[in-house]
Amino acid sequence: MSAVLLAIGGENGAALTGSNTTYVIIAAAIALLALGFAAGLVKAVLATDKGTQKMQDIAGAVQEGASAYLNRQFKALAVLVVIAVGLLWLLPADGGNSIRFGRSAFFIVGALFSGFIGWAGMSLATRANLRVAAAARVAEGGRETAMQIAFRTGGVVGFLTVGLGLFGAALVVLLYKGDAPTVLEGFGFGAALLAMFMRVGGGIFTKAADVGADLVGKIEKGIPEDDPRNAATIADNVGDNVGDCAGMAADLFESYAVTLVAALILGSATFGNQGLVFPLIVPALGVLTAIVGVFITRLRKSDKSGMTAINRAFYISAAIAAVLCGAAAYAYLPSSFSGLATKDADILAHSGDPRLFAIGAVVIGIVLAAIIQALTGYFTETSRKPVRDIGKAALTGPATVVLAGISVGLESAVYTAIVIGAAVFGAYLLGGGVLLLSLFAVALAGCGLLTTVGVIVAMDTFGPISDNAQGIAEMSGDIDEKGARTLTDLDAVGNTTKAITKGIAIATAVLAATALFGAFTAIMRTALEKSGADAVSTAAKLDEYILKTLNVSDPRNLVGLIVGAAVVFLFSGLAINAVSRSAMAVVFEVRRQFRDFPGIMDGTQRPEYGKVVDICTRDAQRELITPGLLAVMAPVAVGFGLGVGALGAYLAGAIATGTLMAVFLANSGGAWDNAKKMVEDGAYGGKGSPAHEATIIGDTVGDPFKDTAGPAINPLIKVMNLVALLIAPAIVLFTLGNDMNTGVRIAIAAAAAAVIFVAVLISKRRPNAVDAAEETNGSEAHEKVNA
Amino acid sequence: MSAVLLAIGGENGAALTGSNTTYVIIAAAIALLALGFAAGLVKAVLATDKGTQKMQDIAGAVQEGASAYLNRQFKALAVLVVIAVGLLWLLPADGGNSIRFGRSAFFIVGALFSGFIGWAGMSLATRANLRVAAAARVAEGGRETAMQIAFRTGGVVGFLTVGLGLFGAALVVLLYKGDAPTVLEGFGFGAALLAMFMRVGGGIFTKAADVGADLVGKIEKGIPEDDPRNAATIADNVGDNVGDCAGMAADLFESYAVTLVAALILGSATFGNQGLVFPLIVPALGVLTAIVGVFITRLRKSDKSGMTAINRAFYISAAIAAVLCGAAAYAYLPSSFSGLATKDADILAHSGDPRLFAIGAVVIGIVLAAIIQALTGYFTETSRKPVRDIGKAALTGPATVVLAGISVGLESAVYTAIVIGAAVFGAYLLGGGVLLLSLFAVALAGCGLLTTVGVIVAMDTFGPISDNAQGIAEMSGDIDEKGARTLTDLDAVGNTTKAITKGIAIATAVLAATALFGAFTAIMRTALEKSGADAVSTAAKLDEYILKTLNVSDPRNLVGLIVGAAVVFLFSGLAINAVSRSAMAVVFEVRRQFRDFPGIMDGTQRPEYGKVVDICTRDAQRELITPGLLAVMAPVAVGFGLGVGALGAYLAGAIATGTLMAVFLANSGGAWDNAKKMVEDGAYGGKGSPAHEATIIGDTVGDPFKDTAGPAINPLIKVMNLVALLIAPAIVLFTLGNDMNTGVRIAIAAAAAAVIFVAVLISKRRPNAVDAAEETNGSEAHEKVNA
Repeated sequence: MSAVLLAIGGENGAALTGSNTTYVIIAAAIALLALGFAAGLVKAVLATDKGTQKMQDIAGAVQEGASAYLNRQFKALAVLVVIAVGLLWLLPADGGNSIRFGRSAFFIVGALFSGFIGWAGMSLATRANLRVAAAARVAEGGRETAMQIAFRTGGVVGFLTVGLGLFGAALVVLLYKGDAPTVLEGFGFGAALLAMFMRVGGGIFTKAADVGADLVGKIEKGIPEDDPRNAATIADNVGDNVGDCAGMAADLFESYAVTLVAALILGSATFGNQGLVFPLIVPALGVLTAIVGVFITRLRKSDKSGMTAINRAFYISAAIAAVLCGAAAYAYLPSSFSGLATKDADILAHSGDPRLFAIGAVVIGIVLAAIIQALTGYFTETSRKPVRDIGKAALTGPATVVLAGISVGLESAVYTAIVIGAAVFGAYLLGGGVLLLSLFAVALAGCGLLTTVGVIVAMDTFGPISDNAQGIAEMSGDIDEKGARTLTDLDAVGNTTKAITKGIAIATAVLAATALFGAFTAIMRTALEKSGADAVSTAAKLDEYILKTLNVSDPRNLVGLIVGAAVVFLFSGLAINAVSRSAMAVVFEVRRQFRDFPGIMDGTQRPEYGKVVDICTRDAQRELITPGLLAVMAPVAVGFGLGVGALGAYLAGAIATGTLMAVFLANSGGAWDNAKKMVEDGAYGGKGSPAHEATIIGDTVGDPFKDTAGPAINPLIKVMNLVALLIAPAIVLFTLGNDMNTGVRIAIAAAAAAVIFVAVLISKRRPNAVDAAEETNGSEAHEKVNA
Repeated sequence: MSAVLLAIGGENGAALTGSNTTYVIIAAAIALLALGFAAGLVKAVLATDKGTQKMQDIAGAVQEGASAYLNRQFKALAVLVVIAVGLLWLLPADGGNSIRFGRSAFFIVGALFSGFIGWAGMSLATRANLRVAAAARVAEGGRETAMQIAFRTGGVVGFLTVGLGLFGAALVVLLYKGDAPTVLEGFGFGAALLAMFMRVGGGIFTKAADVGADLVGKIEKGIPEDDPRNAATIADNVGDNVGDCAGMAADLFESYAVTLVAALILGSATFGNQGLVFPLIVPALGVLTAIVGVFITRLRKSDKSGMTAINRAFYISAAIAAVLCGAAAYAYLPSSFSGLATKDADILAHSGDPRLFAIGAVVIGIVLAAIIQALTGYFTETSRKPVRDIGKAALTGPATVVLAGISVGLESAVYTAIVIGAAVFGAYLLGGGVLLLSLFAVALAGCGLLTTVGVIVAMDTFGPISDNAQGIAEMSGDIDEKGARTLTDLDAVGNTTKAITKGIAIATAVLAATALFGAFTAIMRTALEKSGADAVSTAAKLDEYILKTLNVSDPRNLVGLIVGAAVVFLFSGLAINAVSRSAMAVVFEVRRQFRDFPGIMDGTQRPEYGKVVDICTRDAQRELITPGLLAVMAPVAVGFGLGVGALGAYLAGAIATGTLMAVFLANSGGAWDNAKKMVEDGAYGGKGSPAHEATIIGDTVGDPFKDTAGPAINPLIKVMNLVALLIAPAIVLFTLGNDMNTGVRIAIAAAAAAVIFVAVLISKRRPNAVDAAEETNGSEAHEKVNA
């Protein structure tokens, strides 16, 4: 029992020894090396050819729109960060005021890093897109250069992600040593909160523009994607950058940071000082292999598609990471558990070999990444059966395309969830019956996964850059057929890499969340001990109280579980709804322009691109408030309303349903998109056929699935997890503490629930574009909606 | 602690006293009264006008197809029942061989009742449909009579459901007294297993025919629904009967039986003998109020729609039920907990009033039913905002219709889940800190819900009968515009009532499952005690072991939880896929007939309706195997593989995700269907407009949602719950028992997992209709698919 509920943080910590400090400093130095490589790659990318003047003009417009959006978003989020820091300061923390100050300060650092990576990713992507387009124009070797520029730009974002994540965590460990866990909570929370808002806001922007553009352009007017006559096309390209680039980069940084935080918290409790160092060594080695991975990604003439080159680099760098981590475990860790710096008797008495334990856990994480890569590829690549089946379903119309995509998504989610579950179970078994060790093994598996993040981010950023390059090339018209073909191929690869990233991201959410359950229990225990209540006055009573509180079969906990699952559904529904609403506003604006400027269709008049960018910017800001409040307030309502046990069950429910929902949404969306590409490549009648129209409808349904709701579930889970960790002591205080006050507790819960309810109501009452359009014409509708 | 983990069954039971026996006999007599009323109503319905010869011919064909399907299904299920009885016999049971025999015998009774109600519902529906159509032809008062026939036919099924459910449970209590709980598990399992297969099989049949008919008829050929030129139209009408009638009736019976079983198991443990009687008194009163409800449902001239009349009857009968149950609690229960026949010290010492406790719980159930009724109405009625919003989305095409429906479904699922959660929490609070009492309160709330089931079943059966009547009228052509209008209105009401039933059914699943967690824990405890293992050799060790096993934060349990949620996704995906596959076969067959018999279009040739019925029959039988195996084998794999705690978490995960998924699928489907009806009534361009086409696509997507996957989740949860209860002792035996054998345990888990895996693979490898069609023409494709 003792190991299960051991207090985490502080107790085992103490000061780092000299050699351990050296290792942490080396990890920080490797993190800075990654940042250096990022700077070098930026220079190399910017040095390439910028293409024709027309291309530069278009890219300039995209860049301007993207910067305007991000500036506006940062202003809004700055207010939020200030409020959050204030609230954070109010919450009790172990270790006194200096730790509480550190937690708030590193909350800001986490948020700043998250925001910076998003901004940097977007800035560079808007400069790389036209360079990729320019490279594709070169007849000899153009395909290879275009791929390399896109991938290396992604590499920059990858290096920034791993560099800043590792640097931040190492810094906290150096400064706060044994108290690092509490401060790390702040760092992770800052990263996750900002990432969630950037994911949701960017996701709404990009899909409102994309769906809106498709509905009028492809479906009503029959003009191709990225046709310059479509007023929404610049907004669509801006969206690729603010959603798929900035939002994704912030999200991946958050995944990196929170997983690392979970490993350090558990490591400190399990391995003592060594546990604060080893989880930094693993990702530091990951940085080195990421550098290798990014530089060996080169398209060979013999490669069938960009995916071949990417897969090769991914698997090679994963294998190197596994070998290096094994060597590090042998070099750094003692050969028996009794040699560890921990004070936990169960762990010291454990008969295994901590080196094998650590290697096993890290390898589980790396293998998990590789399996998700393969599985997602299977379900979303154009050459495989699932996507081909969706394409075939187009023969019987859009309804069967939608149904087939939903089936594929549901099924793929199941396999991914079971693989993640198997990884957790495998790590659990490594603990050999000591629960705390099992939890640390889960967290170390997360670190294993992190070694692949550098390459994963590079792969993902690759997607929107290729998409944008295609857009710029098509709009400028300055490209021949072969060059266009190159860019289309790269774009299809991007759809698969994007789905893979989402699978990996959600896997980090599950691993981090499972590990953080240990921290949650420990925080509960410390707070209960402090309460001095009679019900927990002896160690045995305390143990029993905690176990009873966290009992699966308690009806309160079942209610918590159902509400946790429900929040995932509500969040997804709100995000999809937000896209529908904003997309309708875009549709009416584009229709208005076609009507008011008849010259657009024959090319004699230029559409007002900026108006659509404005609509998307405003709507994205407004629409992200409700899901954001839901994420922060729902754990408060459940925790204070139903108790700390129900809050734990709530997290478990959100994790289980969230994992499935996230993969379902990502993979069905990716599969529909590629089914459309398959038909566009000539299958079942090709472009313009009824099958094409049917797959366009499938793709449009999938847009908010894969790029708004789905990817936002990962930061949602992390945010809720960290909010739960932060409020747990306060809940215990109000339930059992000396200043126990049921009235205040219920009032807090009711207030949180009311905030959510009002926010949902307001977002539903917002006049939607169609309401307005029913009475007036599109133009006035637009004015009304955005008044 | 003691109350939490008290053994349920046997311990408190003993013999019933004389007066208690009398009450049980009275309950059984009331059950028989319900069956008598059913017989009377059958006579009354059959005495009404059968309409024109043409109508009778069509109805005859539908009747013949439906009987053929059901006979074939029963033959297949008979084999299954025999296998299940064999396996059931192998599982250990408390109370010796006579109890084990009783469990198996009542498993068969449960299955037979479930099957009989399905058969009876279908038989009567296929006779009532043409009578409703005939009544609608009468100019004066036809609307009122048509509604009455449809509703009274539903009443027969309602009376059979409550009559047989109550009679079966009362019989078990009379025969087995204190041992009733174990035998009741068998009764509930038989009912649930058969219902699940009938729900899935019927659901695949009905939607394969419906989707297939719509894809070719409405979308490709532009002919109306139920046009006799469509070869799938008879199959579509058969489907209404075998899926929406037979499947639904079996499902509702199962809900009734399992909820009652849960209440009796918990009642026996909590209230002693009185707890075996009171849960029978409540539904017995429900039978009386159902009789009132069915007879007062009369359409007044002033009623805007059939829904008004149905709502009126529902709320009146619910109010009467609440009053009667209150009176019964005062008449039957003692005024203090110390007056109960239980031996549990915590309960005897409880300071509340058991009469208020019981009334509170029952009223919570009745109010829950009323809120679900109102909530579902809001989200699916044509006159309310959500459906109107979906209709509006049709202005921007099918993609936005699909997205809007998904948003509505997700959102409505959240509210329904939260309302159900609130009911569980309310019941929990009634327990005043004694967990076992809380669980019994949850079960009693389920009994409160059951008092409304008679009317609910009548409401639901109403739907497919109206749908069929419309089909028969349209195909025969023997009806004027006013009569057709009447039938269309009744059909739209049917869409809402069907969604309501599904909401109520899933609520029973949550309440029963939550309550059964108490039984699960108790069974675990008994088995652990018997194991004689050192880890559970003292009461304190046993308590700690159980609590640790069921700890939310144990990674194994989190894995169980994720797998439980995943099974719901997989089951839904398989069901939707099965419909897509079978529908494609129907599409190719109907296309072939249009091609081979060119006279069909101008009415000179008659389509071969029987061929489509055959395809649906064969496909439904074949396709239900995989989801069926999944439901039975997944708990076995998880339980034996990850342990009994993970199995508990698995159930919790399945309940949470299943509730949301079931309501999401039911309500989005119902809302799409009614959005289509709204456009057909003239909104946004009316029939034949692009908006109409968009809503038809939405409706087609919703078909397998609302009528195949969604409603099958309720029996799925029940089946998995009961399988878990039945295998729990065996799992404990293999984990901790004297003949502990890890190898055998892992082998059982692996075998169960392998069965699922192979079944999924086989169902995926099945050549689908499109594969075949690619190489050959439709006719040959069909031969191939069904070879």
